[in-house]
Amino acid sequence: MSHNTYGHLFRVTTWGESHGPALGCVVDGMPPGLPVTENDIQHWLDRRKPGQSRFTTQRREPDEVKILSGVFEGQSTGTPISLMIENTDQRSKDYGDIAEKFRPGHADYTYNAKYGLRDYRGGGRSSARETAARVAAGALARQVLGSAITVRGALVQVGPHAIDRGRWDWAEVENNPFWCPDAQAAELWADYLDGLRKDGNSAGAVVEVVASGVPAGWGAPIYGKLDSDLAAAMMTINAVKGVEVGNGFAAAALTGVENADEMRMSEDGNPEFLSNHAGGVLGGISSGQDIVVRFAVKPTSSILTPRKTVTKSGEETEIVTKGRHDPCVGIRGVPVGEAMMAAVLADHMLRHRAQCGEN
Amino acid sequence: MSHNTYGHLFRVTTWGESHGPALGCVVDGMPPGLPVTENDIQHWLDRRKPGQSRFTTQRREPDEVKILSGVFEGQSTGTPISLMIENTDQRSKDYGDIAEKFRPGHADYTYNAKYGLRDYRGGGRSSARETAARVAAGALARQVLGSAITVRGALVQVGPHAIDRGRWDWAEVENNPFWCPDAQAAELWADYLDGLRKDGNSAGAVVEVVASGVPAGWGAPIYGKLDSDLAAAMMTINAVKGVEVGNGFAAAALTGVENADEMRMSEDGNPEFLSNHAGGVLGGISSGQDIVVRFAVKPTSSILTPRKTVTKSGEETEIVTKGRHDPCVGIRGVPVGEAMMAAVLADHMLRHRAQCGEN
Amino acid sequence: MSHNTYGHLFRVTTWGESHGPALGCVVDGMPPGLPVTENDIQHWLDRRKPGQSRFTTQRREPDEVKILSGVFEGQSTGTPISLMIENTDQRSKDYGDIAEKFRPGHADYTYNAKYGLRDYRGGGRSSARETAARVAAGALARQVLGSAITVRGALVQVGPHAIDRGRWDWAEVENNPFWCPDAQAAELWADYLDGLRKDGNSAGAVVEVVASGVPAGWGAPIYGKLDSDLAAAMMTINAVKGVEVGNGFAAAALTGVENADEMRMSEDGNPEFLSNHAGGVLGGISSGQDIVVRFAVKPTSSILTPRKTVTKSGEETEIVTKGRHDPCVGIRGVPVGEAMMAAVLADHMLRHRAQCGEN
Amino acid sequence: MSHNTYGHLFRVTTWGESHGPALGCVVDGMPPGLPVTENDIQHWLDRRKPGQSRFTTQRREPDEVKILSGVFEGQSTGTPISLMIENTDQRSKDYGDIAEKFRPGHADYTYNAKYGLRDYRGGGRSSARETAARVAAGALARQVLGSAITVRGALVQVGPHAIDRGRWDWAEVENNPFWCPDAQAAELWADYLDGLRKDGNSAGAVVEVVASGVPAGWGAPIYGKLDSDLAAAMMTINAVKGVEVGNGFAAAALTGVENADEMRMSEDGNPEFLSNHAGGVLGGISSGQDIVVRFAVKPTSSILTPRKTVTKSGEETEIVTKGRHDPCVGIRGVPVGEAMMAAVLADHMLRHRAQCGEN
Repeated sequence: MSHNTYGHLFRVTTWGESHGPALGCVVDGMPPGLPVTENDIQHWLDRRKPGQSRFTTQRREPDEVKILSGVFEGQSTGTPISLMIENTDQRSKDYGDIAEKFRPGHADYTYNAKYGLRDYRGGGRSSARETAARVAAGALARQVLGSAITVRGALVQVGPHAIDRGRWDWAEVENNPFWCPDAQAAELWADYLDGLRKDGNSAGAVVEVVASGVPAGWGAPIYGKLDSDLAAAMMTINAVKGVEVGNGFAAAALTGVENADEMRMSEDGNPEFLSNHAGGVLGGISSGQDIVVRFAVKPTSSILTPRKTVTKSGEETEIVTKGRHDPCVGIRGVPVGEAMMAAVLADHMLRHRAQCGEN
Repeated sequence: MSHNTYGHLFRVTTWGESHGPALGCVVDGMPPGLPVTENDIQHWLDRRKPGQSRFTTQRREPDEVKILSGVFEGQSTGTPISLMIENTDQRSKDYGDIAEKFRPGHADYTYNAKYGLRDYRGGGRSSARETAARVAAGALARQVLGSAITVRGALVQVGPHAIDRGRWDWAEVENNPFWCPDAQAAELWADYLDGLRKDGNSAGAVVEVVASGVPAGWGAPIYGKLDSDLAAAMMTINAVKGVEVGNGFAAAALTGVENADEMRMSEDGNPEFLSNHAGGVLGGISSGQDIVVRFAVKPTSSILTPRKTVTKSGEETEIVTKGRHDPCVGIRGVPVGEAMMAAVLADHMLRHRAQCGEN
Repeated sequence: MSHNTYGHLFRVTTWGESHGPALGCVVDGMPPGLPVTENDIQHWLDRRKPGQSRFTTQRREPDEVKILSGVFEGQSTGTPISLMIENTDQRSKDYGDIAEKFRPGHADYTYNAKYGLRDYRGGGRSSARETAARVAAGALARQVLGSAITVRGALVQVGPHAIDRGRWDWAEVENNPFWCPDAQAAELWADYLDGLRKDGNSAGAVVEVVASGVPAGWGAPIYGKLDSDLAAAMMTINAVKGVEVGNGFAAAALTGVENADEMRMSEDGNPEFLSNHAGGVLGGISSGQDIVVRFAVKPTSSILTPRKTVTKSGEETEIVTKGRHDPCVGIRGVPVGEAMMAAVLADHMLRHRAQCGEN
Repeated sequence: MSHNTYGHLFRVTTWGESHGPALGCVVDGMPPGLPVTENDIQHWLDRRKPGQSRFTTQRREPDEVKILSGVFEGQSTGTPISLMIENTDQRSKDYGDIAEKFRPGHADYTYNAKYGLRDYRGGGRSSARETAARVAAGALARQVLGSAITVRGALVQVGPHAIDRGRWDWAEVENNPFWCPDAQAAELWADYLDGLRKDGNSAGAVVEVVASGVPAGWGAPIYGKLDSDLAAAMMTINAVKGVEVGNGFAAAALTGVENADEMRMSEDGNPEFLSNHAGGVLGGISSGQDIVVRFAVKPTSSILTPRKTVTKSGEETEIVTKGRHDPCVGIRGVPVGEAMMAAVLADHMLRHRAQCGEN
């Protein structure tokens, strides 16, 4: 990962600001001969699109993707695929106040410290709007992985309210505005977030992404570990403050006896694990089990409650961030997390094939 | 990060197996004219050295580092610095059993799945012994950072027993065999680990690493985020299953009002933050506050309690891992975490200087 | 260099096919605060634009560049700059014949061998049209280098006709359609190329690019050598078959006594060289002298003279390449070579500043 | 290529100075399960070893390679292979004079300008001694390529004396101290070089390297072109000033009609070319023909004839370079060029397999 590019062989470079004319990405290293259409990509973009419920930003963006290169007669050619999404619903005047004041918890101050200037309109490059490009790239990554591998995400905690894992139902994820696998938790979250919205406040969340069907053997020691790349990928998503794999932080409290994933031979004659504390990764290499990653999303920094801050010129003041912000940015983090998982896996699929061949 | 190299400009490539003749690293991109001596590097290696208490592996390795290149008359020349540590206390016969059986929770199975063969002696490349090379590289990274930046680590949880942060005392860290900043917790841990050792069991842990003195402005959007690189770096350490920055996973339970780090002007006329929920990183760029990273280390997989497993040839069996293993591998993770923090920061210091110049 | 990206810190990713809707590039790593306008970039693009004389392709492309990101109020922000050039004058029907037949000397056959399919319209990704994106990126690179460094190119040979170096006049370069510094040679070339065009034939050429004002110390051992990166950069330009620095191949015929660039102290008290056989690079690092690179461009493969070839389905046939091709593609190679030189230097400027600081 | 590492998937990092304790390399990305022994590597190192005739340096180095990691029971494990060669015949006192004076044509001046200091003993890192590590890595690259691909080099010009290509005989290459395929030229060169040696002078040379058996389809557009990577690789070899592929610079003097490699169907039903002006690469991708690369090596800068120079402290003086230098460094460039060709091909083999799979 470097600058604005991620991946080694399946390489994604994103560009664009919240309030510029467009944003997009260039996906380089796509294997040739795979079906690629704007419709397929749009399917995934629509899941992340703002304005679909009262719990996400009310900005109205159609987020229509255009393929500018790398596809010929519906197939990838092996050359870079350039994707563009035009911005249509910028209201730059909404952001006049933040031109001068630093929003606490936001990147305003650090961009200014680094570059000496910043595009303050809608957060510029630091806006979560950038993640649309990732979701588009993720759609291509899914084509690389093929239908035997599924990547699914869910929201498992909003504020202090975690789901009941005993009620986990993947089908529920499509039935509520939270991508929540626990129908009861979704109802609770709706009330909780309505309350926060009225108070001009916001909530954090935890997202879980699961990949099934990944064969054993992807990933690599030592600095090319699959879980290291996944951690890096998730941590690049706006507002993410923590990442864990399998048992994650809970593993610290366990003993070696408890944490061991014991092995037996399956009925089809292959080794199998009796549990998945490891989250599908051992020594940085996939074990063949589900790959399970969770990440913590902090509450949106842009809130209507006044907070103490300073101006560029050094005066103490308060700030209230108007504009149309997500009260819980973690919700739209679900399709983004899926996209990052898919992209990391596609990259490692190619890396594994390079070193070890197909088998 | 790729294969066995990490960093973009301060680049570290490590090599070596647990039971080969030696291990080491090549550090490329070192700025010229910095003092480099074997003694300085040895100082940091000695902190990670095995066999210093009954709570770490009893393998006796002097871990003496040799500088093979890149240093002339005590100064870095700007060319690659090759460091080598010879292995002296391998007892390969201890490991005969694991040649055929996969240790649950260990990388035995996945290495075999990926490569079709593995150096089973002491875990080969997947052994935590590899981290000695990182600590040596970290010593060079500290020279790059200079004396204005300090990188310190501490163990903050062993098994289910977390420290009391009200008792945090950096001076205590050097006074007990756990790098624990809370003297009372250290006593408790000693009892807890003694009990586990007698039972042929092991414990997980949480390590916290703090960097002070880092100026605002290091790091970069979007895929070169400082916290993304830190997450990747920590996740490459053996047995690490989770990484968080600042409030981390706890941030998910907070509201935006609670989580905001408000700002005021300091007495010396610079902006300052009234809290550090962010852990010193906003939008992937350092804020000038302490950078705070924690990572969870799972309990050692190599334990004396029998666990169900299978053999390479597909027979069901049990395994007891003899040999000299750390009952809590998180302890020696402290100097390793410090080294990774230092290396990531050194890399970002150079990257920032490249794009934005010095000032 | 990897896939469709070049540079380490000043990183350029290009995308687009000859007959797709558009082509462009993303320039990542641009230092912040530099002036960037569409007009400035357009200035350099206009020099490469087709259709400006009878000696280049008659395709009529305005090649108008649009800035899509990374610039705010006329200044670079440090985030990726996305540039797009729309294709307006594709005539895909011109290319029907090459859908089935491989043009000898062209990439048709090898793309097909590699990918199993190819976008045959106008050569697809292998078209020299891709170089427009490089010239746009080169305009940004010139901003990074600043006004103290000049990068200039010239055509020094067409077919077997080399210039007389005694008549070299940089002012002449702007006065003829060949970027030729020797007015007499330019006249000769016009006649020579008119004859070849009438015969349905084409000519090779040699381009020379010179950078002045580069300080001593840029570049790096061993695999980051400045001349290695320049060789790689020039060799990526379509139809280039050879690259040399300073005396180049002629150095092979010299003795050590002849080839030595002896040194004396200049009047201003700095070391100076009495000759520049080395072409401004010693041991991969700039010496402070002019950096001189030459590259050989093969004759255009797309010609009107019938050549023996085979079809995709394995039938022997002949091919005549209609369409609007450059009779001497080396001519438009001059601004492209300048752009690549500027980009490599900008990258090395940042790399040097990273490791060694400013001074 | 970056700093001291080359390759993307087959990655080689070299380290070491001429007069340090040792030099070596780390080869990362080696496919698993390939036979690797010290003897096999030594075979190739012995071809480059100094002191084998009066035409190379008289330094006596056994150049014995040790494998420190990445090999288990005679097979590559897929983890990094660390190779070390100890220096045994340094005579640092020979070099006292160059501590203060810059050798014209050498990297002394530029290293000093870049880094502010340099290891002057034997040229430090800029010594051709570094190439021993490349030859060792090249031996591993040959294992990756397998026996169906052969990489062979030859010296084709010494000073102004080129071989007669009509007399090319690969078998002759092993019969003279020059790797010359033309027995008569070899005799001429012996006389020519004896004369220069007596005069305290040195000669340039041209090396040609040919790879046979490479399938069509390796390489990649645009900045991952096979010939671009080859040009970069050869240009990193000490004293190389030019690189060309196929017809190279001679192509500039040809017409499109002359330069076209026409195609027909071979007897076995595959497309074949009737000539190989292209040198086996079209559009950056291998065509299935022999890959032919030539590079020009300048005459050794370290000569016994006095040359004007200056000292570090700015005094004008003369320098005579004693020590044991190659009168024609191009000779030992032959095995080095082979090694670089093999390494680039191995890298591209893996890169091609990653994107396009095996077939």
